[in-house]
Amino acid sequence: MSVIEQMKKFMEPESVALFGVSRRNEHGFNILQHILSYGYQGRIYPVNPNASEIMGVKTYPSAKNINAEIDLAVINLPRDLVPGIVKECVEVGIKQIVIATQGFSDANDEEGKRLQKEINGFIKKDGVRILGPNSLGTANPYINFSSSFIKLNMLKVPVGIICQSGSFFGFHELSTLGKGIDLANSCDVDFIDSLEYFDQDPQTKVIVLHIEGMRNAKEFIKTVSRVARKKPVLALKTGRTEQAARAAQSHTGSLAGSDAVWDAALRQAGVIRVTCPNELSDLSMAFSILPPMKGRRIGIITGSGGLGVITIDSCSQANLEVASLSPATVERMRALFPSWQSIGNPLDILPAFVVSKQPFYKVLTEALDASFKDDGIDAISLMWGIWTRPECNRFCQTINELLEVHCHKPLVCFLMGDYAGEAKDILLAAGKTMVFHNPDRAARALAHLAQYSAFRRSL
Amino acid sequence: MSVIEQMKKFMEPESVALFGVSRRNEHGFNILQHILSYGYQGRIYPVNPNASEIMGVKTYPSAKNINAEIDLAVINLPRDLVPGIVKECVEVGIKQIVIATQGFSDANDEEGKRLQKEINGFIKKDGVRILGPNSLGTANPYINFSSSFIKLNMLKVPVGIICQSGSFFGFHELSTLGKGIDLANSCDVDFIDSLEYFDQDPQTKVIVLHIEGMRNAKEFIKTVSRVARKKPVLALKTGRTEQAARAAQSHTGSLAGSDAVWDAALRQAGVIRVTCPNELSDLSMAFSILPPMKGRRIGIITGSGGLGVITIDSCSQANLEVASLSPATVERMRALFPSWQSIGNPLDILPAFVVSKQPFYKVLTEALDASFKDDGIDAISLMWGIWTRPECNRFCQTINELLEVHCHKPLVCFLMGDYAGEAKDILLAAGKTMVFHNPDRAARALAHLAQYSAFRRSL
Repeated sequence: MSVIEQMKKFMEPESVALFGVSRRNEHGFNILQHILSYGYQGRIYPVNPNASEIMGVKTYPSAKNINAEIDLAVINLPRDLVPGIVKECVEVGIKQIVIATQGFSDANDEEGKRLQKEINGFIKKDGVRILGPNSLGTANPYINFSSSFIKLNMLKVPVGIICQSGSFFGFHELSTLGKGIDLANSCDVDFIDSLEYFDQDPQTKVIVLHIEGMRNAKEFIKTVSRVARKKPVLALKTGRTEQAARAAQSHTGSLAGSDAVWDAALRQAGVIRVTCPNELSDLSMAFSILPPMKGRRIGIITGSGGLGVITIDSCSQANLEVASLSPATVERMRALFPSWQSIGNPLDILPAFVVSKQPFYKVLTEALDASFKDDGIDAISLMWGIWTRPECNRFCQTINELLEVHCHKPLVCFLMGDYAGEAKDILLAAGKTMVFHNPDRAARALAHLAQYSAFRRSL
Repeated sequence: MSVIEQMKKFMEPESVALFGVSRRNEHGFNILQHILSYGYQGRIYPVNPNASEIMGVKTYPSAKNINAEIDLAVINLPRDLVPGIVKECVEVGIKQIVIATQGFSDANDEEGKRLQKEINGFIKKDGVRILGPNSLGTANPYINFSSSFIKLNMLKVPVGIICQSGSFFGFHELSTLGKGIDLANSCDVDFIDSLEYFDQDPQTKVIVLHIEGMRNAKEFIKTVSRVARKKPVLALKTGRTEQAARAAQSHTGSLAGSDAVWDAALRQAGVIRVTCPNELSDLSMAFSILPPMKGRRIGIITGSGGLGVITIDSCSQANLEVASLSPATVERMRALFPSWQSIGNPLDILPAFVVSKQPFYKVLTEALDASFKDDGIDAISLMWGIWTRPECNRFCQTINELLEVHCHKPLVCFLMGDYAGEAKDILLAAGKTMVFHNPDRAARALAHLAQYSAFRRSL
């Protein structure tokens, strides 16, 4: 089997054997309960010598009693038992194994190292591949499967994550994630194997990496350089300080390496480095749904002069430019705005509505349409407040209709008021614009989008 | 009347005259509808020559027909009419006037400047004070009053804001704000007057400033230096770049000044400068509800090794220290954790629960109690995921009970999982801890708290 074929068995298993399924649901941690609730349609073989069925699913005393082809084994038993179970899996011909159990290279004792060594003996013998230990394994919302004992959101979005901490599977702010691979200790399956899978996967448009450290960094950089030319790759490299690097060592047993070296290597590879989980979440979505940018010039449309000033600050800090409006745009606005208002960027549309008594949706539509058609603007940042339900519906309808026509430059929104949350949900469901809580985050997302757009043009 | 007495009339009016109240509710913009909905108990006199009542409230053809003492006038009429109305107010003895209308020093034409000059002629004549123009006026949730035509959340929280943009009244992320003063163009009432009010106001514990620019910066710095020694003062100074400063000029007609000069002056005055609206929101709450910090040493308790590493990165970036655990803390944890786990900071409590099968709440309580009692720890950062409702309730109960006993050092949380939002609501209602969406924001908030605590100790 090729690497990709074998990674497909990890990601798209048609049958799974589960070792260490509890009859209880402690703190919501139960893989069997979760995959039943997701609606996984593959065959499930829980192995438990002390039960005949769990949650309505027939159980087997050992792997030897299953007598069927098994694509993936998931082991979640005390560490002392793990090598024996791996051996059992290998003997019945299971080639893909996830080990969730902790206490191997991540442990502080000799026994952990010894157990890891024992497991290592099985790797690539007869084609056996191991994901973990200390791993939630894989997640694939497109087939409603995950080996994670933590319940996931399982959204069918085109973002694939490769991480070294299961928290990225359950991260509230990362609910934009689709498929996932938790490498954790990474004794065998690694970033390179996983990148090869996502590189060819048609359901994945954006690849996200959470890196604590790795052994084969040079080979990784070679692979990721190739992949990043085809699909945007975002990386959160943690363990930036020495103290954090030591903690990473005890977490997954991996070496963090110098932060400056990582920074330069990732940049050269065309990988977009992000600094925090929020930015990872913002950019995953930005690269999934926003069109590329031709340049870095932002048109700002606002209902508040004060927020306009704040948005300029945000743009400057993110090295974006505040666009100069074309004469055509200024002329169109002139007809709507009070005569005393200087028309520029930011375009404050409140006076046109409050002072000149123009119908609000006419002003909003004109301002957006003019900005979409203005060749001097590469992306639009819109700020508005929504305080009633009718306004919320009409606002979203206006935006969505405009985005049906204009899909060649990004529009991002920053909303306030009682109905900001509802408007956000409606706009996100349409999947054509992003709504931010903060002008800084919006500017950073656009800056990265502009940077990657330039990188792609340069290839 | 002293400045403070007069500012009290702006903030705590017992009677208000409203000029320019519409019979309609366009886009949710109607001051009369709002103050009725808030439950304002003072006397309300809408002035409208074309109606006898609006929304059940008797109206008056002009100020001259009111025949009662009026603490505050709010004018929201076309700019050409404003000087005449101000004159009318002065003639009937109204000393406090809010002008909401735009198009004065914020306008681009001669007429705006001329109208502003006309209004200026009334300032401090017979004790008249004017707030605005271009201002939402004041907000005081403690008496259910605001002159804002945008509907506000009106939370009774001890945070007072002085701003130059009404968007800070309606800012979604700033729902932690209590009283507010929108200076806007600031032709008369300014930062100094407003600081004097909040300085003496027993309902305000934290003061927040949104500054675009001002004329009397030297005097302001003198005043704010005095106030910051008594109450924490947070400042978002916008218009950091030249382009943003120009936009500020056209927004409120004020001069932004050099950013570096502002930065140094604010720091020297003991003012905490923040960089974005989210940070303003985080710190308002942090200073309202968290106790001061004795130093910068953070204890990290986590359910994920990966998030532990990320939190160290966040702490380092915010110049916080990762605490060394005392021998007593290590010993207490030793009894609960698997023998192979190295016990340190971050304290990963998941193995104690998943591997050693210790009851989760025992582990959590022990870890938190030990950290609260550990003299080497100045604040605690807790990360945990919550996936079921019973867990959510029990988790919050555990945290709240611990915070009843330990109230001498801050605890901040970073929550994940399906019930993170609900847990956040429960914990915020108890008002003793803060829940962040991002380890970076939590670290920045603690760093500012530590800095201000050190400043207060140094006085």
